[in-house]
Amino acid sequence: MGIVLKDILAVLPAGDKDEVKETTIYIEGNRIEAIGEKPQGFHEEKVIDGKDRLVIPGLINCHTHSYMAFMRNVADDLSFMDWLFGTIDPIEQQMTDEDTYWGACLAIIEMMKSGTTCFNDMQMNIHQTTRAVKESGMRAVICRGLVGSGNDEAGQMRLRQAYEERDRAKDCGRLSFMLGPHAPYTCDDGFMRIVSEEAKKNNMRIHVHLSESVSEIQQIQEKYGCTPIKMADKNGLFDVPAIAAHCVQVTDSDIDILKEKKVSVVTNPASNMKLGNGFAPIPEMLEMGVNVCLGTDGAASNNSLNMFHELSLLTLVHKGTHKTPQCISAREGFRIATINGAKALGLEQEIGSIEEGKKADLAILNLNTPSLTPRNNLIAGLSYSANGSEVETVIIDGKIVMEDRKILTMDEEVVYKKISEIITRMGLDKKEY
Amino acid sequence: MGIVLKDILAVLPAGDKDEVKETTIYIEGNRIEAIGEKPQGFHEEKVIDGKDRLVIPGLINCHTHSYMAFMRNVADDLSFMDWLFGTIDPIEQQMTDEDTYWGACLAIIEMMKSGTTCFNDMQMNIHQTTRAVKESGMRAVICRGLVGSGNDEAGQMRLRQAYEERDRAKDCGRLSFMLGPHAPYTCDDGFMRIVSEEAKKNNMRIHVHLSESVSEIQQIQEKYGCTPIKMADKNGLFDVPAIAAHCVQVTDSDIDILKEKKVSVVTNPASNMKLGNGFAPIPEMLEMGVNVCLGTDGAASNNSLNMFHELSLLTLVHKGTHKTPQCISAREGFRIATINGAKALGLEQEIGSIEEGKKADLAILNLNTPSLTPRNNLIAGLSYSANGSEVETVIIDGKIVMEDRKILTMDEEVVYKKISEIITRMGLDKKEY
Repeated sequence: MGIVLKDILAVLPAGDKDEVKETTIYIEGNRIEAIGEKPQGFHEEKVIDGKDRLVIPGLINCHTHSYMAFMRNVADDLSFMDWLFGTIDPIEQQMTDEDTYWGACLAIIEMMKSGTTCFNDMQMNIHQTTRAVKESGMRAVICRGLVGSGNDEAGQMRLRQAYEERDRAKDCGRLSFMLGPHAPYTCDDGFMRIVSEEAKKNNMRIHVHLSESVSEIQQIQEKYGCTPIKMADKNGLFDVPAIAAHCVQVTDSDIDILKEKKVSVVTNPASNMKLGNGFAPIPEMLEMGVNVCLGTDGAASNNSLNMFHELSLLTLVHKGTHKTPQCISAREGFRIATINGAKALGLEQEIGSIEEGKKADLAILNLNTPSLTPRNNLIAGLSYSANGSEVETVIIDGKIVMEDRKILTMDEEVVYKKISEIITRMGLDKKEY
Repeated sequence: MGIVLKDILAVLPAGDKDEVKETTIYIEGNRIEAIGEKPQGFHEEKVIDGKDRLVIPGLINCHTHSYMAFMRNVADDLSFMDWLFGTIDPIEQQMTDEDTYWGACLAIIEMMKSGTTCFNDMQMNIHQTTRAVKESGMRAVICRGLVGSGNDEAGQMRLRQAYEERDRAKDCGRLSFMLGPHAPYTCDDGFMRIVSEEAKKNNMRIHVHLSESVSEIQQIQEKYGCTPIKMADKNGLFDVPAIAAHCVQVTDSDIDILKEKKVSVVTNPASNMKLGNGFAPIPEMLEMGVNVCLGTDGAASNNSLNMFHELSLLTLVHKGTHKTPQCISAREGFRIATINGAKALGLEQEIGSIEEGKKADLAILNLNTPSLTPRNNLIAGLSYSANGSEVETVIIDGKIVMEDRKILTMDEEVVYKKISEIITRMGLDKKEY
């Protein structure tokens, strides 16, 4: 279908920064065919009037656990290990396949409604997530969370599930897969080495949690005599392109490793604050040239999957911790939430910016909103004042998946109802909060 | 007009915390006449169906500069004194009466659309702000920002303007007034004493900026040999009920003074981070029993007036700085954004909670939204996952001012157009950002 975004303000790349310019964008199939001039023989099937609208590259949520959306607000104000092993784990034991599916649907609705067009997910029931992604029209990179000791059967089974789902989903161009060793405190060194070898052999990327909490640092130090990042490096995880979530508690030599091994770091400021883990040294990593991208983490520890909220945190909190108003500008933050994420996922030729030939993954914002008035400096508006509800229309892979804030590919009311049934079945509505 | 909110989930006070309960609320005139049972002789003129809805007390924004809404995104990533004296001041020199008015209109639209029903404002052109408040149906407490040296004529003129406007606005029950000595670096000790005496004589409260930036601390230390809070105290500012904005850079004995003199502290986390001022020691003040309330500051330093955004910052950032997930819970944060604000403004008998006899200042949220799904723990949802766009209907002083997200008392499109004209006239659209 040929879609035209006519006379619209657009955030376009201009060298190593972005600029806002009025233009017209022509979409054919799943790609941006042209920007500015109408291509010869272009057949307009749908014209979106760009008056009072801004189009941006869809935001890229580089670390989340989509199924956790149904656990929003069930486990607040707990320390990291109490949260994970005391509250989340027992809920996960009760989860059915369908619960994962409806959780992922809720997550996808929330992300689309706040301008996210691609997410990088780690979970257990991988097939239910790919199912939700396929049906919804979302783009995602997915890994089966891998937990194991040496070459134990449980770890091997999880690896088989990862490959089975990758092979089964080959027909969907919006899906790609990584290998996801969960974390150094849930995978031992033997299993880490197995996963690293598998990733090399199969030409797959790695998605891992690293150096999130102080207790993780202590555990790994006691067990292996080094930091989690050093442990991951020693076991080969960074010998393929890797994406490391959190990296809150890091040493200078950890940052050197991340830089040298070209590891992408996903920062998750809301989750890191909420679980009492603190602030990752993101300005220092950027200064060193590490590729930093942005994620929301799961709704059980954020509790939002709204990347505009996360972008505002990214561009605010480090100004606070460093007492420097110049720290992570609005423009730098916006690139962290878009093109840097695409790089981390190995998709920078395909998504992350509005360019001819790239996939049409776009969010269109209504500018007749108080948060984006006035319009003199809209990239500042995106980072500091937008809340995500300005997003009106979302296009993914050339297909309109949301229009006038209505999701076209899923029935929102059914999803809300199903989530409510899960909460009731698990007795979480009766819990004392 | 008799309004009924029928079978609706409501956040109601229950001892010193809040609970969410389904009930029916009856509004007559500008007050909540009854909760639960229909009062005898109640005449229903409008029934709002509470299905899938949550009603909360309107949020109270305890520190802002409404006119600055037109300066959103014009002065980012600058240090405090460069921001104020290098960028904001020159813009203020060009401001006309009408600019103040349209700025206040934009601020009020943004606040209503994100569930704020009362704001505490400091500005220069006080009459244009009261005009916007009167027309819009908003509730506000306003002060004319006072700057002066001893009993200089400029300071005296500003005091006269404050009183004139207070007297002129006597007919509007939604308006009240404070005296607003701007800050210790813009008011000398002689003028501070004059303002304190005036406040005592006229039975008025004080609204002042205190201990915001490190450079303020240095200036006041050099000039008076003490902290700004001590300077304010010595000059009598706390001899009437006072509300002190910021209090970021404070000593333990500053906190003792705030506690002893029953000063309410307005924390403005976004603005404090954005200007590189850091984090106020709010958990320590709460621990000491200081009444803490919440504000957005102006849109020139936030850049949002969305109290849901501010509430999420309040309940997240201190968990990060203190590495304690229990620090400022969702429930504590919600009270800081509502009833604590009412106390700070001396309006706790009138607003800040849903109780029989109080003014009907209410925000109704649509729960069929991803950010508020599931519904098991909605107060956590309000603090951690809501973004403000869930607010659908707003009632202030018993009058519906927004319905289905449409502002009924102002023409939004006209306001956006006027703001754009101001930006163009001042050349701010041509500025390099």
